[in-house]
Amino acid sequence: MAGYPRAVARLVEALERLPGIGPKSAQRLALWMLRQPSERVTAMAQAFLDAVTQVHLCEVCGFFAETDRCTICADPRREAQLVCVVADARELLAIEQTGQFPGLYHVLGGVLSPLDGIGPEELSVAGLLDRVGGGTIGETILALNPTPEGDTTAAYLARLLKPRGVRVTRPAMGLPVGGELSYADKVTLERALAGRQEL
Amino acid sequence: MAGYPRAVARLVEALERLPGIGPKSAQRLALWMLRQPSERVTAMAQAFLDAVTQVHLCEVCGFFAETDRCTICADPRREAQLVCVVADARELLAIEQTGQFPGLYHVLGGVLSPLDGIGPEELSVAGLLDRVGGGTIGETILALNPTPEGDTTAAYLARLLKPRGVRVTRPAMGLPVGGELSYADKVTLERALAGRQEL
Repeated sequence: MAGYPRAVARLVEALERLPGIGPKSAQRLALWMLRQPSERVTAMAQAFLDAVTQVHLCEVCGFFAETDRCTICADPRREAQLVCVVADARELLAIEQTGQFPGLYHVLGGVLSPLDGIGPEELSVAGLLDRVGGGTIGETILALNPTPEGDTTAAYLARLLKPRGVRVTRPAMGLPVGGELSYADKVTLERALAGRQEL
Repeated sequence: MAGYPRAVARLVEALERLPGIGPKSAQRLALWMLRQPSERVTAMAQAFLDAVTQVHLCEVCGFFAETDRCTICADPRREAQLVCVVADARELLAIEQTGQFPGLYHVLGGVLSPLDGIGPEELSVAGLLDRVGGGTIGETILALNPTPEGDTTAAYLARLLKPRGVRVTRPAMGLPVGGELSYADKVTLERALAGRQEL
C-alpha cells in the first residue's frame, strides 16, 4: 500500500495540529495548498514566522505588541484609571471597534476552567492585582463572556479586587440591540427585566 | 481605535486565505498560534515550505511524488494494464487503503464543473488519453464520486475512452456495507436494485 510522500504527510500532520481541524479537513487543506502557486504557500509560511518572531505580549496589559508596550498602553490619551478586563485579544478588539472605550485593558489569557486545568496561575491574575496595587486604577470593568466560565471568573476576580478599594463593574446584560423580545432566551429576558432602567 | 500589530494582522490574513476558514476562524487560529511555543509554529511553517519545495506531481499519473514518478508508478509489481481514474489524491489514498487494488492510477485533478470554470483543459484528460494511446492499458475504472459532477465527468470520459478500444468501468453502486436498507436514500436503493447480483 502506498501513502503520501513524507513531505505531504508532514504537511497534513502540521495542519491537524491546528485547533478545530480534524484529519479530513487537514487532508483537504494540504491538497489545496499543494495546488497553489508555491509563492502563495511560501508567503503563508513567512507570515507564520514573522508573527512568532515579531509579536510579543505587552508587558503591561498582555495584548499583542511589537515593542515592550502595546500601542494602547503607550497612548497617553487613554484614561489610566479605567481598566477593562477581557479574556483574550478578540474581545479587546471587539471593544476597541466600538470606538467608545477611553480606558486601558487587561488581557487575562482565558477564563477559569478547572476541567481544562486552567486556574488563576494560568491566567494573568497576579499581573492584574499588581496593576491595581499601583494605585492609579479606579475602576475595573470585567468584560467576560456571560457564560458559566465567564461568570465564575468574574466572581473570582471581584472577590480579589473589591477589598483593594477598586470599583468593580460588568457590562450590562439584557436584550441585544435589534433583537426581538419573543426570540430572547429565558435567562437573557430574566436579566433584562431584573436590570430594567428608568426612562 | 487600536488594532492588531501588523504581523498579527498579516497572520490573520494568511489564515483567511485557506479554503473554508472565515475571518472569525482565522482570528481564532491566529490567537491560538501566538499562544504556542514558537518552535511549534516554526515547525509548521517549515512543513509548508518543505511541501512546496519537495513535492511535485508524478509525470505519469499526477499523484504526489518526491521524484519524477510517484512510488506507485515506479513500482514494477503494479499491473500496468489496469488504471483507476480518480478526481484527486484523497480518493487515490482511500482506494490504496483497501490494500486490494493491484493497478495504477490517474489523478484528474478535479471533476468537470462548467459553473466553476472547470472544463477538460483544467483536468488531466489529455494526459489520460495519451496513456491509453500508449497501448498498455486494457481497462480504466472511472472511480469518480456518484454526484452529478462525478457522473457527468464519467460519462464524458467514457465517450472519449471507448472508441480507443479500452474497457471502461465504474465501481458498483449500491447499499453501503453495514448500512440499513430502510435508511438508504431512494436513488441508492434504486441503483442497488437495478444492479442486483446472482447469489
